[in-house]
Amino acid sequence: MRRDYFLDLWVIIATDRAKRPSDFIKAKVAAGPQDCSFCPGMEIKTPPSKASYFADGALCHMADEPGKPPRTGWTIRVIPNLYPAVESEDVMLMDGRIMSASGVHEVIVESPSHDRHPQFMSGEEIKRLFTVYRDRFRDIAKIPYVKYISMFRNYGKEAGASLAHAHSQVIALPIVPKRIEEQYRLDYGPVIAKESASLRMILNTEHTVAFAPFASCFTFEAWIFPKRPCSNIAELTDAERDDFAVVSRDVLSRLSRLLSDPPYNYAFVQSVSDDMHMHLRIYPKLGIEAGFELNTGVHINSVTPESAAKSLREI
Amino acid sequence: MRRDYFLDLWVIIATDRAKRPSDFIKAKVAAGPQDCSFCPGMEIKTPPSKASYFADGALCHMADEPGKPPRTGWTIRVIPNLYPAVESEDVMLMDGRIMSASGVHEVIVESPSHDRHPQFMSGEEIKRLFTVYRDRFRDIAKIPYVKYISMFRNYGKEAGASLAHAHSQVIALPIVPKRIEEQYRLDYGPVIAKESASLRMILNTEHTVAFAPFASCFTFEAWIFPKRPCSNIAELTDAERDDFAVVSRDVLSRLSRLLSDPPYNYAFVQSVSDDMHMHLRIYPKLGIEAGFELNTGVHINSVTPESAAKSLREI
Repeated sequence: MRRDYFLDLWVIIATDRAKRPSDFIKAKVAAGPQDCSFCPGMEIKTPPSKASYFADGALCHMADEPGKPPRTGWTIRVIPNLYPAVESEDVMLMDGRIMSASGVHEVIVESPSHDRHPQFMSGEEIKRLFTVYRDRFRDIAKIPYVKYISMFRNYGKEAGASLAHAHSQVIALPIVPKRIEEQYRLDYGPVIAKESASLRMILNTEHTVAFAPFASCFTFEAWIFPKRPCSNIAELTDAERDDFAVVSRDVLSRLSRLLSDPPYNYAFVQSVSDDMHMHLRIYPKLGIEAGFELNTGVHINSVTPESAAKSLREI
Repeated sequence: MRRDYFLDLWVIIATDRAKRPSDFIKAKVAAGPQDCSFCPGMEIKTPPSKASYFADGALCHMADEPGKPPRTGWTIRVIPNLYPAVESEDVMLMDGRIMSASGVHEVIVESPSHDRHPQFMSGEEIKRLFTVYRDRFRDIAKIPYVKYISMFRNYGKEAGASLAHAHSQVIALPIVPKRIEEQYRLDYGPVIAKESASLRMILNTEHTVAFAPFASCFTFEAWIFPKRPCSNIAELTDAERDDFAVVSRDVLSRLSRLLSDPPYNYAFVQSVSDDMHMHLRIYPKLGIEAGFELNTGVHINSVTPESAAKSLREI
């Protein structure tokens, strides 16, 4: 990892991922179901799972055993990323501007079914996925050098998904990114109270509220908060997490129906070690960040959040 | 313009640009030369020019006259953006979180030739374009409420260009974006000295140096600095600006030859009113910023800047 000359901005240099200029010329094509390493029966094409979940009775999970064939019959499967952006090793800060890219990079294969993305999941399925997010957060947070755990999802080629099979990713970092640190100790209580009663409200349940943020950077952006402040997904009660999962699925399903199943990214904003009001941010990918956004960090949004929320409430 | 609940982050809500959810469903297709509003003979399809440049002898410029047919025979043409993100009006700060989106949004049609992008321009053509950048900066900087002038270029559909004809854009804002303010009063002198002699150097001329920054966020990213610190393009001498233009063209040409003419964005980092070492940043568009980048602000780059610079020096 390298740091900017002056600012607290880091980049991960991950040269395993591409080697020659010619590698950039052809766009990657996502594999169809007939050729997918994440589909059942193809387990041997991925590294051994760190956890495979089974739905027999309770949700129980077991890693593949070294030297044995990979487990089959799973409902969710957690595997190391074959092209990790970060790798488990000791953290070394070479000087103020170089650090070893230590961490964890996992893929959560969300379903045996190739196209079972969260926007199409049943309540039971989305609750199971969020329980796995909780488990991965818990396990990874125990690693001493881990300072932040990014849990996110890319859906669609335009949103950066290089594999089409339903999956999320987890990247644990040895630093707290500035963008996350800026969220520490912010009191979202008054924001939630105000937005729940505003034209920007999308869904409001016992434990959870979803709204289009006042200064939405992206068209149809949605933020989903548990009403009780928690620093991360592991601190939610089971009832809170289940409600949070179902509301998230509902917002994704509404986006899918409203906008012909658009590409999107979502990511948890959460903290390993400091106070924060964790939440999920959904970013539909309807435009391209271009020169102006790169230059200024100011976004241009062509739909008011009030109008986006109204469409999402009514569909 | 709206400000984030807590942070100094702004978004421009520009609802003229799209109205209904269905507008997002079909991707825009860039017009070919047979149907292009920016090509010669089609001047009537754009708003009257604010300046049209002619190459007869000296570079002289004249706006279209109201009520008369638009001028023809231009080499570069500056027109108001038909779908402006900001519009000229008085600045009003409604409360700390809403501001009228006052400003200027212009298109610089860079050539009568549809495909004459900077990477393909002659020395004379690129010098002329950078002189127009200088002129637009000078004119717009006189508007009292203008606090920042973003001058940028999107090349290729993947980099956000919605029209294919060679053009740059100018958006003047009533705020200084945080991303720009962070560059105020930074001393790039030692950085330039070090990078000019490093493996990251791309080109080094009398007045200008181009290098791949140590912590390049984007693959094959390049920064181009005038050696003498200037706050903006209007402060360069003619000789400095000409050299800066030619080095910028050379880097773009090398990128084009190395990577099969990839999409890219470039933008000037400069200041209207405060000390800054102005420079140009070129961002080839070879990947997609996805959930991880949106979540953390940390980028993943699969090529070291040393290797990128070597390829760009050698081609």
